[in-house]
Amino acid sequence: MSGSEFDRIARYFAPLANEAALRLTDDAAVWSPPPGRQLVLTVDQMIEGIHFLPDDPPDCVARKLLRRNLSDLAAMGAAPIGYLLTTALRAATPEAWLADFADGLAQDQRTYNITLFGGDSTSTTGPIMTSVTMIGHVAPGTALLRTGARPGDAIFVTGTIGDAVLGLEAARGNIADPGSFFSTRRLLPEPRVGLPLAGLVHAAIDVSDGLIQDLAHLCTNAGLGAVIEAALVPQSSAARSAGDAWLETRLTGGDDYELILAAPATAEPALRAACGTVPLTRIGTMTAAHSNIIINDASGTPLHFARQGWQHF
Amino acid sequence: MSGSEFDRIARYFAPLANEAALRLTDDAAVWSPPPGRQLVLTVDQMIEGIHFLPDDPPDCVARKLLRRNLSDLAAMGAAPIGYLLTTALRAATPEAWLADFADGLAQDQRTYNITLFGGDSTSTTGPIMTSVTMIGHVAPGTALLRTGARPGDAIFVTGTIGDAVLGLEAARGNIADPGSFFSTRRLLPEPRVGLPLAGLVHAAIDVSDGLIQDLAHLCTNAGLGAVIEAALVPQSSAARSAGDAWLETRLTGGDDYELILAAPATAEPALRAACGTVPLTRIGTMTAAHSNIIINDASGTPLHFARQGWQHF
Repeated sequence: MSGSEFDRIARYFAPLANEAALRLTDDAAVWSPPPGRQLVLTVDQMIEGIHFLPDDPPDCVARKLLRRNLSDLAAMGAAPIGYLLTTALRAATPEAWLADFADGLAQDQRTYNITLFGGDSTSTTGPIMTSVTMIGHVAPGTALLRTGARPGDAIFVTGTIGDAVLGLEAARGNIADPGSFFSTRRLLPEPRVGLPLAGLVHAAIDVSDGLIQDLAHLCTNAGLGAVIEAALVPQSSAARSAGDAWLETRLTGGDDYELILAAPATAEPALRAACGTVPLTRIGTMTAAHSNIIINDASGTPLHFARQGWQHF
Repeated sequence: MSGSEFDRIARYFAPLANEAALRLTDDAAVWSPPPGRQLVLTVDQMIEGIHFLPDDPPDCVARKLLRRNLSDLAAMGAAPIGYLLTTALRAATPEAWLADFADGLAQDQRTYNITLFGGDSTSTTGPIMTSVTMIGHVAPGTALLRTGARPGDAIFVTGTIGDAVLGLEAARGNIADPGSFFSTRRLLPEPRVGLPLAGLVHAAIDVSDGLIQDLAHLCTNAGLGAVIEAALVPQSSAARSAGDAWLETRLTGGDDYELILAAPATAEPALRAACGTVPLTRIGTMTAAHSNIIINDASGTPLHFARQGWQHF
């Protein structure tokens, strides 16, 4: 670590850290976990040119980095506590980039009531690279898993599906984006943290790689299949305006960070109550047909897509 | 995440994971921390061309990645439990590189009795990038900190200092390395985990950035200075053979992953007992002269070095 790295840590990251992080001046953080709780641990990285565009605002890169990880915790039904961070910047990366990045972290630390436990900052000659290890907690035995879906379970999704990938298409100039709605959805997903889903759903996963691919994980992990009605997959009014030509893109694009939930159809009222103001839509049913996902169009005819999921940029 | 990434995870990483990691098929790990213990959390990254050389054996890269993080826990007096991993490889990175890397992880998981909690694997167009977030534990209130040194404390180091940086000089062809001793010390440091130092030392840090720079952290954090006798700084017989021309390199080079300990001189016998077979050498004394580190040569004359610490390759 070079002297300027110590300065950068003191200036930008130390203000984000809590007592456990020992002002980031020690070798590691020392933290008393909440007694009687299980911890939920996840890590995700974001690399320039792969997970974000070079021109994306740095504060949004930071917030999306946190939110991707928060979404993984949300998919487990866990409450977030704090995170560890790595950054690898080029020597030519402007100081303002780091300042804006740190501002984004600070902003979402407040939004989600989380803190910085520690980090590692270094230089790279390649694309900018950042990662977050996020730590949350659940009551013992209540974590939502990908494995528990049962045949006949109703399949629900939160929010709307496909806006983020249309944001990517907008950044590429392939689709209009009045009011920057799609762009905002790509840059600032809203992870569904804090929903009291324990005991209501059999299985859960977040949509990071695309609706169909992530649904496929729920199916594979339970030895099941699924039937989805494409017309039921919730879309924003902006996506509806974009038209049916984008259907495959929306259902296979990633970065939505909505939740897919498998639950008994009878649980729907309780599930709606648990979701509160978060929109919840039933889109299909789990079946006993192992790993067979059928997407029906409005006439009941199965659709065939060239790809299932998300390959990043 | 692409399909081949799922295959790679299943093939190389899932066998490294324990039950808490849910076979790496879920969004996050679910783990019950040891009751009544504080957790110790740290993260470190290794980037090709910065922290390792492109030709370094991948199993050694993996093991050094773990060991750098284990050393941070050792410096806190913490016992390691497990880790989360990120990897970013190029499309052209051979599968054999990943296989060897995973072998290295498996080998050191056995050596240090740790497990894989989770990870994220992606592609990059730049240098290979890996990081580890390591989790350990201590009895409440017993973590060793960088802050507690007092004037008059004796300064000790474990092992020998400067072999790793001579390994780097050997890789550059600047110094002979019979028997690859220096090279091995660079590629496979031995973190001093498991020493029962709690209650014996006032402050501790591991030597990652170079003896003088890391000692400077102990001084700065305590508002103190230090006097070091260069002739007392322990060196391997290979380093001794290399001669005094390498003194500055040895004292300012990084990657030793030995411990610097500040403790009352009267604690020396107990400290030696705690260190068991790990060599322990007294090299100097903490002083009240804020941030003033004096390195004396054998005649008592202060040495002046062009640089304090490690800037990586």
